[in-house]
Amino acid sequence: MDLIFDDAYFMRKALDEANYAYEKGEIPVGVVIVIKQQIIARGHNLTEMLNDVTAHAEMQAITAAANFLGGKYLKDCTMYVTLEPCQMCAGALYWSQLSNLVFAASDHERGYRKFGGQLHPKTKVKNGIMEEEASKLLKRFFIERRNLN
Amino acid sequence: MDLIFDDAYFMRKALDEANYAYEKGEIPVGVVIVIKQQIIARGHNLTEMLNDVTAHAEMQAITAAANFLGGKYLKDCTMYVTLEPCQMCAGALYWSQLSNLVFAASDHERGYRKFGGQLHPKTKVKNGIMEEEASKLLKRFFIERRNLN
Repeated sequence: MDLIFDDAYFMRKALDEANYAYEKGEIPVGVVIVIKQQIIARGHNLTEMLNDVTAHAEMQAITAAANFLGGKYLKDCTMYVTLEPCQMCAGALYWSQLSNLVFAASDHERGYRKFGGQLHPKTKVKNGIMEEEASKLLKRFFIERRNLN
Repeated sequence: MDLIFDDAYFMRKALDEANYAYEKGEIPVGVVIVIKQQIIARGHNLTEMLNDVTAHAEMQAITAAANFLGGKYLKDCTMYVTLEPCQMCAGALYWSQLSNLVFAASDHERGYRKFGGQLHPKTKVKNGIMEEEASKLLKRFFIERRNLN
């Protein structure tokens, strides 16, 4: 069976990353960055483990992708992320001039669209890919955390 | 002579950092983070050297301060930065719940106030401290860079 390298394929890889975050007790958000159907960076939220508010999945992946490419601009790259980026990550993506952003779940509270951040005018955006799976994982995390407190 | 630990004192330290950036050919922005009149983190822009759009002075200092404090929130901290933060850095400061932000020069193009980012509601903001010195350094950098191209 041939693998089909479509949005769902790469979003599943981002969901794998979100699951790694979940297993570590982190808010489960995962990301991959793809160029020419090749994953060049992966990341998952590590804010608790690293004690660092800047350690969002997207921020780590932006740094890793730039490192792979040897340049700081993510032209021709697509980021797949399981949750709508916050204003910090949108700001980083703005500077990176990312070509395509695909996110799964919307973040109606802290997502950049509601909160006032903006992407680069060149960045094309798609959302809702595997939204249900991404949302379910986030909800499970927050319900379990609430029950612990 | 007693040293007076006022805003100008700490902004001068941030300007020292901006000068380090300038000497490295980086857009000259510098920052210090202070708690109880003690500098716990310093940083200057390193986006070119690190090939990383996330390597703004503020982002590095937020990570360093959290590392020093052993926790990710910058409560009771004051950040002194020579230029108004962009939306990415404002977003990081939002998550950090920084208590006080003091910046020198305004950024009328990419600063968070114009661009749409927002700080944490608990963050108090002051600006204009040593604005002339900070602006002069930035202008010098951009004029020199233009002449090189």
